[in-house]
Amino acid sequence: MKETATILFSLPGNEDLTEKLSRLLNAEVGETSIRQFPDGETYVRILSEVKDKCVVLVSTLHQPDEKLLPLYFLSKTAKSLGAKCTCLVAPYLAYMRQDKVFKPGEGVTSQYFGQLISGFADSLVTVDPHLHRRSSLSEVYSIPSEVVHAAHSISRWIKENIENPVLVGPDSESEQWVSQVAEDAGAPFMVLEKTRHGDRDVEVSVPEVEAYKSHTPVLVDDIISTARTMIETVEHLKKAGMKPPVCIGVHAVFAGNAYEELKKVGAKVVTCNTIPHESNRIDLSSQLAARILATM
Amino acid sequence: MKETATILFSLPGNEDLTEKLSRLLNAEVGETSIRQFPDGETYVRILSEVKDKCVVLVSTLHQPDEKLLPLYFLSKTAKSLGAKCTCLVAPYLAYMRQDKVFKPGEGVTSQYFGQLISGFADSLVTVDPHLHRRSSLSEVYSIPSEVVHAAHSISRWIKENIENPVLVGPDSESEQWVSQVAEDAGAPFMVLEKTRHGDRDVEVSVPEVEAYKSHTPVLVDDIISTARTMIETVEHLKKAGMKPPVCIGVHAVFAGNAYEELKKVGAKVVTCNTIPHESNRIDLSSQLAARILATM
Repeated sequence: MKETATILFSLPGNEDLTEKLSRLLNAEVGETSIRQFPDGETYVRILSEVKDKCVVLVSTLHQPDEKLLPLYFLSKTAKSLGAKCTCLVAPYLAYMRQDKVFKPGEGVTSQYFGQLISGFADSLVTVDPHLHRRSSLSEVYSIPSEVVHAAHSISRWIKENIENPVLVGPDSESEQWVSQVAEDAGAPFMVLEKTRHGDRDVEVSVPEVEAYKSHTPVLVDDIISTARTMIETVEHLKKAGMKPPVCIGVHAVFAGNAYEELKKVGAKVVTCNTIPHESNRIDLSSQLAARILATM
Repeated sequence: MKETATILFSLPGNEDLTEKLSRLLNAEVGETSIRQFPDGETYVRILSEVKDKCVVLVSTLHQPDEKLLPLYFLSKTAKSLGAKCTCLVAPYLAYMRQDKVFKPGEGVTSQYFGQLISGFADSLVTVDPHLHRRSSLSEVYSIPSEVVHAAHSISRWIKENIENPVLVGPDSESEQWVSQVAEDAGAPFMVLEKTRHGDRDVEVSVPEVEAYKSHTPVLVDDIISTARTMIETVEHLKKAGMKPPVCIGVHAVFAGNAYEELKKVGAKVVTCNTIPHESNRIDLSSQLAARILATM
């Protein structure tokens, strides 16, 4: 299998990462023509030779609905042209959150989406999928999958870029994850304390605040989507008199104006390059390249 | 099978047709909650009882890319809730045109799309699918399908609404179809003649123009998308001194400003209600209801 040539294709918007991966894998970047017909249908054409090659499709999956058909068509077309296998590299994997029936009448869309992808890709490489109630991606995807964990890269970035950091967890649920990143970065950590006085009356306090007044607070989360929790946490830290924090997310989903609002409360925002965004500072391409090789 | 209860669900935008079908089939319209999460993922919830029922999903498929996942999730969710079968009513069926490899490197997206739909719906009802190089929908869809032909309804509409019509075909390829509609409507027909003088120099003439100066020209096509051919034909008829024509399409796809441009050259535009549009005048719901019954 190792002797099969690899060819990478970028779905629209993934050109930077595809270029990086091609250098790391010493593999060519293939050419495609992907466009919309005037009636909204997608046209797909593969302009490079794919016969007997392993085709790597690079397509992160935020805003997934419009991306699915182009990806599916490209994968099917590659196979029809004799590609040996197709590997989907989706640094951000969509539809991981609806992983159970919360209310009667709902479906488990994470499962359905997994079945759909598993129906046309032969393997999957992703970064920190949001596995909340599942222990492994193989419960959702029937194809072989490889996962990059961003924690170590985030710790290293903190160590190299922040003087005197203190990791901050927004609640006790985050303690385990935050404490690991902190240990890896050689930094202390604290977790905000919530005291509930009534249904809507929750007091949030910052423990040991005096000890960390000269530190830079660092918040870490896997997905920054609406950023509600981060914005609230930043405001608690400000009220307690701490320095402006750095907010680190793996996946720069940023629904609506979330990015602007998070910057407005005074946070510096840093993300990994799983979704192209101006806040991308932490490059995961070498870990992705290693995981792509592992699928072959 | 006939005793299984039927429940209809409208995907967003198909409410009118769903309501009409429910009256014709004497079947209930089910309630759903379909919305986008802030990050662009689709949330789907079925609020009506579907257990042991036959679930009819009404979703026309112009601008198909964004419609596929909601439809797929709804079908899978219905099945997970115990629905006996799911029937997709897609009055306009997308991806019928790329039905062969025109250039090397292309895929046959009509086939791929058919496989995807056939993977989650148990049957399909549609109107005049664009079968160009295929003789039957069963070559593209592996599930049972039923097709409504709009020609008779169009002929009847012409008979009831246009005094002194003459059917006009834009070229000799259209002759068979145009002559049938004309015969059915009890109207004469003519086909424009193209004389090619060079690569870009094509002369179009209107035969027997004097005989039809007091007639209303009627143009008919299955899909009006960019409307280029219709607009050109209307202009030829105008130049020949004929009355302003009526342009009839089965499917009101209307890419970009096509509708406005077609009206601007003086045409009255009439379509069937396969895609909701202000030009819808010809109602196909009773034929659709009959074909839905035939799938059960």
